[in-house]
Amino acid sequence: KIRVGILGASGYTGAELVRMLLRHPNVEIAALTAERQAGKPMAEVFPHLGGYGLPDLVKIEELKWDGLDFIFCALPHGTTQEVIAGLPSGLKVVDLSADFRLSDPAEYATWYGHEHRAVDLQKEVAYGLTEFNRQGVRKARVVANPGCYPTCSLLPLLPLLMENQIEPGGIVIDAKSGVSGAGRDAKQANLFTEVSEGFNAYGVGHHRHMPEIEQELRLAAGRPVTVSFTPHLVPMNRGMMATIYVRMADGVTADDLRATLAARYADEPFVGVTPAGVVPATRHVRASNHNLIGVVADRAPRSAIIVSVIDNLVKGASGQAIQNMNVMMGLGETTGIDQAPLFP
Amino acid sequence: KIRVGILGASGYTGAELVRMLLRHPNVEIAALTAERQAGKPMAEVFPHLGGYGLPDLVKIEELKWDGLDFIFCALPHGTTQEVIAGLPSGLKVVDLSADFRLSDPAEYATWYGHEHRAVDLQKEVAYGLTEFNRQGVRKARVVANPGCYPTCSLLPLLPLLMENQIEPGGIVIDAKSGVSGAGRDAKQANLFTEVSEGFNAYGVGHHRHMPEIEQELRLAAGRPVTVSFTPHLVPMNRGMMATIYVRMADGVTADDLRATLAARYADEPFVGVTPAGVVPATRHVRASNHNLIGVVADRAPRSAIIVSVIDNLVKGASGQAIQNMNVMMGLGETTGIDQAPLFP
Amino acid sequence: KIRVGILGASGYTGAELVRMLLRHPNVEIAALTAERQAGKPMAEVFPHLGGYGLPDLVKIEELKWDGLDFIFCALPHGTTQEVIAGLPSGLKVVDLSADFRLSDPAEYATWYGHEHRAVDLQKEVAYGLTEFNRQGVRKARVVANPGCYPTCSLLPLLPLLMENQIEPGGIVIDAKSGVSGAGRDAKQANLFTEVSEGFNAYGVGHHRHMPEIEQELRLAAGRPVTVSFTPHLVPMNRGMMATIYVRMADGVTADDLRATLAARYADEPFVGVTPAGVVPATRHVRASNHNLIGVVADRAPRSAIIVSVIDNLVKGASGQAIQNMNVMMGLGETTGIDQAPLFP
Amino acid sequence: KIRVGILGASGYTGAELVRMLLRHPNVEIAALTAERQAGKPMAEVFPHLGGYGLPDLVKIEELKWDGLDFIFCALPHGTTQEVIAGLPSGLKVVDLSADFRLSDPAEYATWYGHEHRAVDLQKEVAYGLTEFNRQGVRKARVVANPGCYPTCSLLPLLPLLMENQIEPGGIVIDAKSGVSGAGRDAKQANLFTEVSEGFNAYGVGHHRHMPEIEQELRLAAGRPVTVSFTPHLVPMNRGMMATIYVRMADGVTADDLRATLAARYADEPFVGVTPAGVVPATRHVRASNHNLIGVVADRAPRSAIIVSVIDNLVKGASGQAIQNMNVMMGLGETTGIDQAPLFP
Repeated sequence: KIRVGILGASGYTGAELVRMLLRHPNVEIAALTAERQAGKPMAEVFPHLGGYGLPDLVKIEELKWDGLDFIFCALPHGTTQEVIAGLPSGLKVVDLSADFRLSDPAEYATWYGHEHRAVDLQKEVAYGLTEFNRQGVRKARVVANPGCYPTCSLLPLLPLLMENQIEPGGIVIDAKSGVSGAGRDAKQANLFTEVSEGFNAYGVGHHRHMPEIEQELRLAAGRPVTVSFTPHLVPMNRGMMATIYVRMADGVTADDLRATLAARYADEPFVGVTPAGVVPATRHVRASNHNLIGVVADRAPRSAIIVSVIDNLVKGASGQAIQNMNVMMGLGETTGIDQAPLFP
Repeated sequence: KIRVGILGASGYTGAELVRMLLRHPNVEIAALTAERQAGKPMAEVFPHLGGYGLPDLVKIEELKWDGLDFIFCALPHGTTQEVIAGLPSGLKVVDLSADFRLSDPAEYATWYGHEHRAVDLQKEVAYGLTEFNRQGVRKARVVANPGCYPTCSLLPLLPLLMENQIEPGGIVIDAKSGVSGAGRDAKQANLFTEVSEGFNAYGVGHHRHMPEIEQELRLAAGRPVTVSFTPHLVPMNRGMMATIYVRMADGVTADDLRATLAARYADEPFVGVTPAGVVPATRHVRASNHNLIGVVADRAPRSAIIVSVIDNLVKGASGQAIQNMNVMMGLGETTGIDQAPLFP
Repeated sequence: KIRVGILGASGYTGAELVRMLLRHPNVEIAALTAERQAGKPMAEVFPHLGGYGLPDLVKIEELKWDGLDFIFCALPHGTTQEVIAGLPSGLKVVDLSADFRLSDPAEYATWYGHEHRAVDLQKEVAYGLTEFNRQGVRKARVVANPGCYPTCSLLPLLPLLMENQIEPGGIVIDAKSGVSGAGRDAKQANLFTEVSEGFNAYGVGHHRHMPEIEQELRLAAGRPVTVSFTPHLVPMNRGMMATIYVRMADGVTADDLRATLAARYADEPFVGVTPAGVVPATRHVRASNHNLIGVVADRAPRSAIIVSVIDNLVKGASGQAIQNMNVMMGLGETTGIDQAPLFP
Repeated sequence: KIRVGILGASGYTGAELVRMLLRHPNVEIAALTAERQAGKPMAEVFPHLGGYGLPDLVKIEELKWDGLDFIFCALPHGTTQEVIAGLPSGLKVVDLSADFRLSDPAEYATWYGHEHRAVDLQKEVAYGLTEFNRQGVRKARVVANPGCYPTCSLLPLLPLLMENQIEPGGIVIDAKSGVSGAGRDAKQANLFTEVSEGFNAYGVGHHRHMPEIEQELRLAAGRPVTVSFTPHLVPMNRGMMATIYVRMADGVTADDLRATLAARYADEPFVGVTPAGVVPATRHVRASNHNLIGVVADRAPRSAIIVSVIDNLVKGASGQAIQNMNVMMGLGETTGIDQAPLFP
């Protein structure tokens, strides 16, 4: 069995890794770290994970690396790059933070307010949108797991841009996320009383997932792409939807877009395209690693509306991380992450 | 006191009218109708309205019109036009259905699937977006109360189109509503278990509020306007947000848009514009007749994002209906609907 | 107009006082205090309260007491007693904290872990369960506003104990509250993700509202009463229910209990008793100052089940506080707090 | 592989069976029935179950029984008894309805309003509270799967009654359930707008799970037991809690109760007992087949409070049904139902 360590196991993505890895036949959870909670049993931090014989939480500096084969790094953005740069060079890593997603150090500095602290490492990191980079992921030592919004937006957009069926200009991504994406830190804005029975936009015009989306769209389109991207907070725990407004190339129809996506994803286990007339909802993928995509013709000429849904904690984070581990370790890609969605 | 009758009092907009009119100093609730629930006390249909001495529910044909001064009509779409056409000609009416909102009978027939049954009456109906039609409302016998999505979308867009600060083409309205907009009929799709912990789009590409929005935008722009409009369902009872993506005219900035809106609404009691950097949320207007509007510059050149919020049952329905009644009856416009929002 | 100061206006009960007092015809909100938020406009702390010309938040020590006629004290438990002891002696006060609710200093010390710091003042304080202490409240300078759980439990139980229709022993109060009762401080346990889609008990066996309930039951029963009291957290913002299991005196029936309560509250504007067969729900009183009580016969002999509901922020806190102010100032008792419930 | 048929697959318990059986290594889902939805693909009725190659829904009379090895019957109460009586005698069945839970035909008639239609069959049915009837379940052809409330209540109470540590009289079970227990039929009372932001009791004094609970408690206590049982509806999809108030036998302490339960369940894979001071919450067992039990000493002498939680759709229905199938078919008891809980 692969002896896995999870750095930053006291957050939601860490707990979600544990939940799925507990049922992974090729994995043993060998180490869990957390800074403030170090010394506690995992069941004290996450009571739903009691009874599984999990290792207690320790500080990163207490880890014995030679007992580990693989690392998931679920640390906060900004703190991760130095930790990963300092790992033994034989350890493979999937990093769930944003630290290695932007390949251009200048762009990183612009959006994160400081110089990247592991620029050399950045060069060998593979971007882990699995469906588009299997070869890169397979050979990589470090994989940068994509953000939830980029995953939800890129899976529908990349094939359409690559086929020149939509224009790179004027793409509007109106995105909505459940609250778990905000993490487990105690913040007034995320209290039940502040979030429930309400709906709000946030990070309007300047969310950090925007450059990540544009970086990948640029690669697909072969030229710079600027998107309108607005994230919103939905009073639900899990789930993410991107409602995407695109302008089609001359002569292309919404049916063409759907056919392109259906063909592109016909053999993908985790991406589905809904039939004409069916629009996916977040509850159709809850707690699963699935992405569902629907395409609708708009009334305005050459306009189409694309709806893409994922579970932000699974395909948008921990599930895709395990998918990448499976690829990196030569396992079946769906191993341990093939649960059907949970409804209701 | 004005003796008011509410037709269709067993739905949410009917109950919401009652809630607010109970505190209106110039109104007496004199009659309540409901078809299937006729004969019951209101408190049996809406237990929260017990203890107020409300009249029992009766069928419309049992009403004695000469005991009434004013009618709110909250009947289902399609059934309303004949009822209103048959009312005594001295009775003033605010109609909360969609039946008289489209002024073009051909457009009505296209979107509703049958010929309008009161075309003559349609000509004298005033469209009741109060802030833009006070004179018309004041003189009207019948006012068509706007839909919730049109109210939420038009209040920010109309001044900007009138001032030629945004282009009429390419407007994207990504709208989100609480579940109360779906009414009180028992439908599987609106069960708690189907709605909570999820998010979905509906009516993509063909929602009936679309022609209503375009009708008013056309009047403001002086030429046909086709919008992209996608409504979504949020797991909350009340609240509506429109996230609107617009393209600004040459040389215009987001600050200009905000200034135009702030100037236009400076003296309006129910419409507010948030300062730069503040984006309104639905919870800021819950249970009130307020509309709040925020404007943010997008990164793409000449693009701006506008966020508009209302309570769909108040400013989006019953509150605006009372606002129109106040204007029609020469009362202070805020009478009875000046409650502060409810939070949390 | 009565010039009112609200100490501790940055919490939910403070905001709720503001919401209702804005519509109180005899009140002017003259001062608002908050420690950490001092210097900010109220609309920055509570955006839903923008546009009302409210005074900015100041620290308590910056207040000019001679500009004020009445104080609502919504400070945290434990910090309140010294503040109130130091107020000018002419100022009337309703205290929403727990500091003056227990009349026995020894009991206070037992449950709160320190000696009471204003024992002398404690003697002149009136317990503000308005329906049972109007005379005391009318004459008091300082009123201790009851806790939410005590209000919800005592209103049904006191008349039945006074009439000897139920036994003082073996009373079980299984209580459920919305999350707003936990306040606005950032705590992990109250995050949306921790609370929604779940249900839990808390403070089992040792909640601080227990001695308050027992103190008042003892007065009504004329002898010591020990209740089983378990509070639970419901994933909703507002609302409180007490499901109370009682043993009836020999020969007494559930119908007798209902008749006793109905007679006792026949003239009370804020307390209602539902007819046989109707059980009240929290949504029937949401956002109102109402208490509704239902009584059901149990199958076990001499057993009855009583269901009592309030809005924890209104009748359970700020609404009852204003009710007490109205009594203390000789105003109509329902002034400013006669809103109908909000549903849905 | 065991070829399984699910009768009544269009409800929530049917879908939940499918979700878990899809990952069961020894099962093939061979047939799905539904009356009104017959002819449709499962993915049309439950979009989250698309992509698994499930059989289409058919009517029961269209089933070919000889292609099946095992039946789960998730039909509505009252309609089930005749269906099961008519099955080929070689087919093993777990029945999730209430039809075979009460062993006394007279009691059945009293609570369900009609004579039982398969009294002979009733005699050979095993009550499927697995932890207390493994031998009976192993040998049975038909197992009556317990109700959700009985499962949640009996698991903590049975060992304590068997050990005479609590008194059979005066037990109060205050129970709370998520909304999925109400099923998927379109009912106004279960609309999102009617349920969310509220809390209510239902079936007070006469819920049909009461005689089932009392039947099993009577067997454990060796004499008739009458409980006070009040179910409540929590605005969440899944989860169930029973807060149970018991009177302990002379000399017994809460620690004794906890020790008894811990010893009884030490080797049970699905039942856990929390340490002193820890009270379980529904979110600790969400989407899992777990039951967690906590015990707290009350302040009143000889009183204790027991908190028991399950997921009503899993251990309270479909999970326990699969657990029983595993026992009936000689498989490992946890096969296919060993998922960790889902949080958040």
